[in-house]
Amino acid sequence: MAKVAILGFGVVGSGVAEVLARNGAHIGQKLHSNVELKYILDRRDFPDSPFSPRIIHDFDLIERDPEVEVVVETIGGAGAAKEFTLRALAAGKSVVTSNKELVAKHGYDLMKLAQEHNVSYLYEASVGGGIPIIRPLKQCLAANEITEICGILNGTTNYILTRMIRAGLSFDAALKEAQENGYAEADPTADVAGHDACRKICILASLAFGRHIYPEQVPTEGIDRVSLADVAYADACGRKIKLLGRAILEEDGKIQAFVAPHLIGGEVPLAGVEDVFNAIAVKGNAIGDVMFYGRGAGKLPTASAVVADVMDAVGRRDRPKFMDWGPGSKDVTADIRTLATRWYVRVRGEAGRALPERLDVERFLARSGAPTGETAFITKAPLTRGALDNALEGLEILSAFRVLED
Amino acid sequence: MAKVAILGFGVVGSGVAEVLARNGAHIGQKLHSNVELKYILDRRDFPDSPFSPRIIHDFDLIERDPEVEVVVETIGGAGAAKEFTLRALAAGKSVVTSNKELVAKHGYDLMKLAQEHNVSYLYEASVGGGIPIIRPLKQCLAANEITEICGILNGTTNYILTRMIRAGLSFDAALKEAQENGYAEADPTADVAGHDACRKICILASLAFGRHIYPEQVPTEGIDRVSLADVAYADACGRKIKLLGRAILEEDGKIQAFVAPHLIGGEVPLAGVEDVFNAIAVKGNAIGDVMFYGRGAGKLPTASAVVADVMDAVGRRDRPKFMDWGPGSKDVTADIRTLATRWYVRVRGEAGRALPERLDVERFLARSGAPTGETAFITKAPLTRGALDNALEGLEILSAFRVLED
Repeated sequence: MAKVAILGFGVVGSGVAEVLARNGAHIGQKLHSNVELKYILDRRDFPDSPFSPRIIHDFDLIERDPEVEVVVETIGGAGAAKEFTLRALAAGKSVVTSNKELVAKHGYDLMKLAQEHNVSYLYEASVGGGIPIIRPLKQCLAANEITEICGILNGTTNYILTRMIRAGLSFDAALKEAQENGYAEADPTADVAGHDACRKICILASLAFGRHIYPEQVPTEGIDRVSLADVAYADACGRKIKLLGRAILEEDGKIQAFVAPHLIGGEVPLAGVEDVFNAIAVKGNAIGDVMFYGRGAGKLPTASAVVADVMDAVGRRDRPKFMDWGPGSKDVTADIRTLATRWYVRVRGEAGRALPERLDVERFLARSGAPTGETAFITKAPLTRGALDNALEGLEILSAFRVLED
Repeated sequence: MAKVAILGFGVVGSGVAEVLARNGAHIGQKLHSNVELKYILDRRDFPDSPFSPRIIHDFDLIERDPEVEVVVETIGGAGAAKEFTLRALAAGKSVVTSNKELVAKHGYDLMKLAQEHNVSYLYEASVGGGIPIIRPLKQCLAANEITEICGILNGTTNYILTRMIRAGLSFDAALKEAQENGYAEADPTADVAGHDACRKICILASLAFGRHIYPEQVPTEGIDRVSLADVAYADACGRKIKLLGRAILEEDGKIQAFVAPHLIGGEVPLAGVEDVFNAIAVKGNAIGDVMFYGRGAGKLPTASAVVADVMDAVGRRDRPKFMDWGPGSKDVTADIRTLATRWYVRVRGEAGRALPERLDVERFLARSGAPTGETAFITKAPLTRGALDNALEGLEILSAFRVLED
């Protein structure tokens, strides 16, 4: 018998309670041991919930109860969530989390504390919702050197981009629709500005490359500057614009990690990932390309990833714990200013005639209903952002997005 | 230190030797223990191979060597491979295999023998080449009841179908091209007739639903009856024809498992899986839809899955072993004759006018260059094959493929 406490009875926390109740028999059979939910910590009462007898308001009860073996942290943020995680680990309890901010900011320290107390700190649900990605990535890692990770890591922005493409909505209209459907928060900044994707690529890159990569080391652009015009130009040439989180192992061993909108070819598997779905493509030196796809958020998918981690924590109770990655440092990451790629560019003015003298253009793009007074094109040779800006000096750049090579 | 023997120095076996050599330091670091290749069993000598000092011809050496902890079986088939696997397990050695035929036919018995000797029998590489699928499926299973698995499980047939669609090749011409490119064997029967996909869906279904499902319980159709006309009709309405292995949990708890060509919508993620790639979609009661994608075959991808299993076998050396599924029986599977789906149908003759009296047609299909004297359409309501045949009595059915619902 393993007893569990949930911290935070919000969307994911209540989903975890539900999955434990609904699939309890199944879980007991798979684990050869039952899992029982003992406490739910929340500031609020939930008098109408079937789980109300388990609601408590004082973390001390959990911390001091030797029966509680696993603490599920679904509070979010790096405040109370961090304090309770530290105290739970120090009290010799494993912690399972869906909190990407905490893992991205403090994952190394929390794993180290867990190791010192011979318990687990597990975070499968922090990336890709229900998609099994953390454990498969460890499995890929077993026999591969990972060379690149590239993912559509945020469902909200992918939904907005899909609606812009499919329904011709402006960014603002698509965002409003996403909010009405419950896919975007009232304050959508973390999603739209790319912070959420940034935290997730930090976690994936730290795991894949073995050193903690912090959010402030990852240049991050959101989709707020993607216009309907850009989406239309992409569509007209059979391509899509997607917000990607990427981490690339460079030849000198540094990691180029960043979040930005990209132009991607229609035949690339990531191009078919629509609506609120997420997908993570991994490249390994033996395995080649693999991709993991599914709902990147949602109550039950995320809860199912949390519960799988709870079972894992119980199953590895008596085994030695290893660190998933080492400490970070400034020199782990590369300088984004050195990254040369092809670019999709939209500039003001009829620059078409003059451009070939300044830089090699692979193709000019057309779209139906394009206004006069703008020019869109894809560059031929890979360029750094600096070289692009130099070549276009004097022109007003309306949009410039990197091209993802197949 | 863990010592390993490889049985069969063919494509996969030599790939395993190569991955162990190439990523050895990395593997040692991850596993906190080194892995050393001690023997390679093959009938042939390989005087020019760097691995030639390890080549032996007598299995007794491996069986009697207490240093050998893990045996990698990459012989294939159910003859010598079975005998050596039985002997290795009985001698207390874990066995890791890429042999889908052996797992599909004898997986339950071999896992039982492994459990009796407290060793592992692992088979990640038997499905989906390098795609991590067996372990992620166990992880999905941890917190989910799986309700359906649907996959493009054979790279050869997917390559042939892709070439028919993209290059307008006939089945025979596309097969010839696949053989020239090394994607199809000289005798392509196992791939083309669906036997390979059948074995893989047996393994996935046994794992997902907990009872051994044998190949003879899985009605299997290949792609040899898919014509260029069918591919063109599908293409003209934005759909694709794909060979799918499916296993569906029915309401009475029986498993509907089968392999057959399907018409699938262009927006379904599986539709974008082209060439030799494989993909496996899994539906769970909490997780919703997830999909795993990658190269379904190939030396290094498959070898990397084998090596991950070797590391797993070593890592779980001292832990109790559990069965992945229970024994099979005739009543585990449902009768395919009861399965109602929509159908894509092509019949001889200008039956268009008369059809709506016989059955509901959702839409008639057109293609450029269609000859007179044939009619293609999609049915509206789900029908069993028997009901379809009755409705079309007197007409010559040229093709009839099930439609995969989104």
